[in-house]
Amino acid sequence: MSRYDIAIIGTGPAGLEAAITAKVRNKNVLLLGAGQSSEKVWKAHTVQNYLGLPEAAGKDLQKAFLGHLDEMGLRITEDRIIAVYNMGEYFGLQGKEDVYEAETVILATGVVASKPFPGEEEFLGRGVSYCATCDAALYRGKKAIVIGFSPKEEAEADFMSEYAAETVYIPMYKGDAHVNDRVQVLRTKPVSIEGGFKVSRLVTDSGDLETDGVFILRDAIAPGMLIQGLETDGPHVKVDLQMRTSMPGVYACGDIAGTPYQYIKAAGQGNVAALSAVNDLADKARRKDSANG
Amino acid sequence: MSRYDIAIIGTGPAGLEAAITAKVRNKNVLLLGAGQSSEKVWKAHTVQNYLGLPEAAGKDLQKAFLGHLDEMGLRITEDRIIAVYNMGEYFGLQGKEDVYEAETVILATGVVASKPFPGEEEFLGRGVSYCATCDAALYRGKKAIVIGFSPKEEAEADFMSEYAAETVYIPMYKGDAHVNDRVQVLRTKPVSIEGGFKVSRLVTDSGDLETDGVFILRDAIAPGMLIQGLETDGPHVKVDLQMRTSMPGVYACGDIAGTPYQYIKAAGQGNVAALSAVNDLADKARRKDSANG
Repeated sequence: MSRYDIAIIGTGPAGLEAAITAKVRNKNVLLLGAGQSSEKVWKAHTVQNYLGLPEAAGKDLQKAFLGHLDEMGLRITEDRIIAVYNMGEYFGLQGKEDVYEAETVILATGVVASKPFPGEEEFLGRGVSYCATCDAALYRGKKAIVIGFSPKEEAEADFMSEYAAETVYIPMYKGDAHVNDRVQVLRTKPVSIEGGFKVSRLVTDSGDLETDGVFILRDAIAPGMLIQGLETDGPHVKVDLQMRTSMPGVYACGDIAGTPYQYIKAAGQGNVAALSAVNDLADKARRKDSANG
Repeated sequence: MSRYDIAIIGTGPAGLEAAITAKVRNKNVLLLGAGQSSEKVWKAHTVQNYLGLPEAAGKDLQKAFLGHLDEMGLRITEDRIIAVYNMGEYFGLQGKEDVYEAETVILATGVVASKPFPGEEEFLGRGVSYCATCDAALYRGKKAIVIGFSPKEEAEADFMSEYAAETVYIPMYKGDAHVNDRVQVLRTKPVSIEGGFKVSRLVTDSGDLETDGVFILRDAIAPGMLIQGLETDGPHVKVDLQMRTSMPGVYACGDIAGTPYQYIKAAGQGNVAALSAVNDLADKARRKDSANG
């Protein structure tokens, strides 16, 4: 497996700017996320204060950003990272589609609006999962609950039903849920996840549901759950002015790094995060040289 | 005198973005600086990593930035601020052309490459000045030395010579200095400014020069000298992640707020500084209301 210099998770303005700046500095960049940039970009009605692009509709920003990416010869790898493992000398990234390795990681995943459910963090990896595609096979003949925060997760519930004996789908959005006949749709509010060593039930507003697994499918994974041991502050990752986090080799930028949630602020921080990664990679190389020399 | 909500000093990307964001939030903005944006913008050869404006020549960035300003109905007041006074409830800004008042001040002046001369801070206001136009009349019949860091300061030396009995001009740049016959051009390196209560001489590489005043004309004034009592870190103003400085009501963004010196980083910080000012103005208004209510 080739090891990238810098893996960037997220394709909003923070991630895209980080990728462009890292490329300018001749780094080997892996840019992971939605190929169409973030929803928050292309769904924007009008952005008035992105300096240099006045009165920009979200679609215009999207076009300008992705056009810039093209001009730099950068491409987006459409995968969703569900866990990042600190391996000491490098980081392992577990995606839905593939696994990756990188020397440094830039988090630009946006901010998670919803709080984790009580029990979510405790049972992560022991019945709580963020990826149905990855883990469905483990639930052959078992009971699974899929909590989906957007209609695009309905396909995950369908996929789960090919393995699980019982699949319950709880949509966290308004409007119909279009799932296959093997999936039972339940309109309720999850309260907490409980169990012993492993998950045994989901407590909801309308009663307890016995289950072997709870799949929680949000647009973004809370940073503290994406990387164990990362210092957070509410929904944000703690950063310094150079966008370094509490974990050497990990940087954060954009909404995940704190308010205000603004496009140009996100891009600016992406630039800083990339340059910090570039500087730290150079330091690491110097240390290696002097240790070997 | 009308009091502005927010005075922004500097018209590079940080200052321009701050002005645009403050205007979006309906603030009464005073934007001070060069009408053509900063030299660092329009002199840039090519900027590759300003997200959304690929392969932009400095002139293209300048056009995009100033065009955005126009669309927002913002204009630049071409004045140079030589001192900001904290008046408790507001700030007084001393310009070369005029004086201004504002509730909050955003510093976006760029970074000063040269260090202050020994004695410069000590004698500021007692023989050291940053503005020949402002203080020339005080030197009628006296001796003055003008230290100019760019050819545009030659006019200041000429103006000084209309008052002073002797005017010495020390150019800190290469190339000819075009001044009138009453100004003596001296090629030397200033070392320190000395005196008793007031300045009495400039020590240079080629000997001591007796003088009543030393005018130091740089493109930007070191932040600690622009506002007394502001915490600095070398050539930078200390800021937090919200671009607040050590002084309530004063914000900094762009190069003056630290490295990296990058266009998009500066713009991003300008956005954050403006929103912090907007938030603090709202808090101030609420406190006033509750004190009066």
